[in-house]
Amino acid sequence: MPIAEILSQGNEVISGQITDTNAPWLAQRLTDLGFDVPRHTTVGDQVHSIQQAISQAAERADFVICSGGLGPTKDDFTAEAAALAMGTDLVFDEQAMQQIEKMFALFNRRMPKVNEKQAWLPRGAKRLDNFWGTAPGFALQLNRAWCCFVPGVPREMMAMYENTIEPELKRRFSIEKGRHFIFRTTGIGESDLQELLHDLAHEEVELGFRASFPEVQVKLKFPPAFSELSMVAVFNNYRERLGDFVFSIEGLTKPDQDGDMAQVIGRQLKMRKATLAVAESCTGGRVLAALTSVPGSSMWLKEGAVTYSNDSKIRQLKVEPDTLSEVGAVSAEVACQMAQGIRRASGSDFALSTTGIAGPDGGSKDKPVGTVFIGLATEKNTFYEALSLIGDRPHIQASATMAALNLLRLYFLDHPIDEDPPQD
Amino acid sequence: MPIAEILSQGNEVISGQITDTNAPWLAQRLTDLGFDVPRHTTVGDQVHSIQQAISQAAERADFVICSGGLGPTKDDFTAEAAALAMGTDLVFDEQAMQQIEKMFALFNRRMPKVNEKQAWLPRGAKRLDNFWGTAPGFALQLNRAWCCFVPGVPREMMAMYENTIEPELKRRFSIEKGRHFIFRTTGIGESDLQELLHDLAHEEVELGFRASFPEVQVKLKFPPAFSELSMVAVFNNYRERLGDFVFSIEGLTKPDQDGDMAQVIGRQLKMRKATLAVAESCTGGRVLAALTSVPGSSMWLKEGAVTYSNDSKIRQLKVEPDTLSEVGAVSAEVACQMAQGIRRASGSDFALSTTGIAGPDGGSKDKPVGTVFIGLATEKNTFYEALSLIGDRPHIQASATMAALNLLRLYFLDHPIDEDPPQD
Repeated sequence: MPIAEILSQGNEVISGQITDTNAPWLAQRLTDLGFDVPRHTTVGDQVHSIQQAISQAAERADFVICSGGLGPTKDDFTAEAAALAMGTDLVFDEQAMQQIEKMFALFNRRMPKVNEKQAWLPRGAKRLDNFWGTAPGFALQLNRAWCCFVPGVPREMMAMYENTIEPELKRRFSIEKGRHFIFRTTGIGESDLQELLHDLAHEEVELGFRASFPEVQVKLKFPPAFSELSMVAVFNNYRERLGDFVFSIEGLTKPDQDGDMAQVIGRQLKMRKATLAVAESCTGGRVLAALTSVPGSSMWLKEGAVTYSNDSKIRQLKVEPDTLSEVGAVSAEVACQMAQGIRRASGSDFALSTTGIAGPDGGSKDKPVGTVFIGLATEKNTFYEALSLIGDRPHIQASATMAALNLLRLYFLDHPIDEDPPQD
Repeated sequence: MPIAEILSQGNEVISGQITDTNAPWLAQRLTDLGFDVPRHTTVGDQVHSIQQAISQAAERADFVICSGGLGPTKDDFTAEAAALAMGTDLVFDEQAMQQIEKMFALFNRRMPKVNEKQAWLPRGAKRLDNFWGTAPGFALQLNRAWCCFVPGVPREMMAMYENTIEPELKRRFSIEKGRHFIFRTTGIGESDLQELLHDLAHEEVELGFRASFPEVQVKLKFPPAFSELSMVAVFNNYRERLGDFVFSIEGLTKPDQDGDMAQVIGRQLKMRKATLAVAESCTGGRVLAALTSVPGSSMWLKEGAVTYSNDSKIRQLKVEPDTLSEVGAVSAEVACQMAQGIRRASGSDFALSTTGIAGPDGGSKDKPVGTVFIGLATEKNTFYEALSLIGDRPHIQASATMAALNLLRLYFLDHPIDEDPPQD
């Protein structure tokens, strides 16, 4: 497997003023292409640091891509550093100059004198034209590594990578690509997942875990030579063991089981030609925000209510005042009445509700911070679940949101569509 | 100036599956503290790579912080790599074990056997307790560098840095610290801000811009020796020029002007002893979710409605059916009626509303995707603003959410509290 290293360059990145989105983007692309990417390095705007980082990476990797530091200003040193790493100097590239002038003309702007600097490239380097901005890139061979230098502007970097660099990588390296799958789970922690799966380990299959609160992802990575039949067997073993914890799967050829929890819910509602309404208290709009992130959600999301006060629970959702005074707003009874209330008012097929104490204040001995009830009303029944959540306010709100959506997903699992799917 | 290096560790970071937010956060904190941060390095889950990265960083820097790889699973190698770098082995730390068991007890969970691994620390290392998760950190001296190892989970990493590591850094290093201020703005882009401020440049004051959609932050950094009076003068010049674009300021001694937009709104409502209700269409719960992220928001947020369908706009908000059929749901009239409707129903002092086309579908020639109306109803008046937003669905929803909150903020600016503030 060929090795790639990624260098990012710039004081604004190194100081944390901006988050480097180039490195993860490139890492994903290169990994998907079949490269091993063992290291990223970020350095500031000092010629020496840049030169050192380039030289060291070129000793370890087969391909090095460096973004940033190709601008016209005094603190743009990458071309100079690359020339030093090569033991050579900079030469004026006439065609680079013409391309820069053309870009300024295209933007209807006069070219400032300082931009001439961008036409000076390391001697022997191959120019990489930039049709999306003014800074040309360049490529050169240093030690074992083919090294590409691209601008730090994400849009320009991505366009040059996709159009020029990736096609060349495919020509230069014979890369065999394996398959990978991601099981997205909820309702179980990372350590428990590891224990659940430990006896399924297969020495050729890479198993990875990633906690992305409030979900945990399990990744299976198969090497290129792995037989298709064995892959299906291993995949099915994991799939079966993970059971209902899995809410979606990424990496299948037919993408009808992927996506986030809201997309999964939306797909089910669409298939069932059913509608949903939501009444939220402690989650304060997060269930609705998740659902409305799905394009086309207006087809199946009828309406929502955020009812913080008892008054609005009574008026909007017809929660019984007696129930509120007897068992309190944070109770299974109120969660059920909230779901029933918005289902009836909206005429939806299903309704979800949340009520709880998100903190930091409002907890008591009987009902500490993190006490949450979620409700689900259907045509025939009303269900609820009692949760004892931990963490701070954002954590509790996010956990309760996921749990509410998951309650509906599990209901759908228990109640499969019995008619034939619509023929359209 | 002491030198700090940042190491991030984990296959999910190196492969680009997740974007490393720890490194920029730490870089910002360390830079603000007075460290020079010349390099970040990210490595995957191989003992050798991690060990090499630790050793190299410890030769160049006075302080090294490494996040990630302290979990209980087989691919967590950081403690082992740190021990190798020190030329020592791992020893079982009884107190670490007790702390891990305590965390599981706190979460009401049985401790899986695998978590015992987390109590094995490099011989001679000082344990750094983690009160926010199960993975303890540790610190050790290697060559010239004090090296700290913390979990990769951002919440745990940040809490350990703030509570344990930063205080120790202040003791160990004599750092001269300048002051810095951040103006948080909305309603103006980064290039326009640069143009607006360019003639205020002061050669000793570092000026930085950071776009954190949908806000742009302007940072002023004063060197330690800068005189207090000159600082106030420079600060005021910027403050005045930025005008109403500024919604909050970070870095002032008295923290009554800081925070995000929802906190600013909440503070105003509390001071005015006033309440708010929200009716959302295209933002689908995001205005409410932002407001309910503020602890204690139940004191001033009366209730909310998410009304996607015409039917629910009519029933919940008493929008006129005639208005809907004459000018459509995405119109200034409907935005106003939505705000008036929820204000009346909830009995709140103020009400906000949003209606628009978030896309990708639903646009027309007259009302393309990105057409959004926001409304504000007060006791005496109703206001609206028409927006033409660009970008994809998440972008449009986030812009519209910010614009709605900003409409209320600007109203408060135009209508200062005339009575004396409450004396409590």
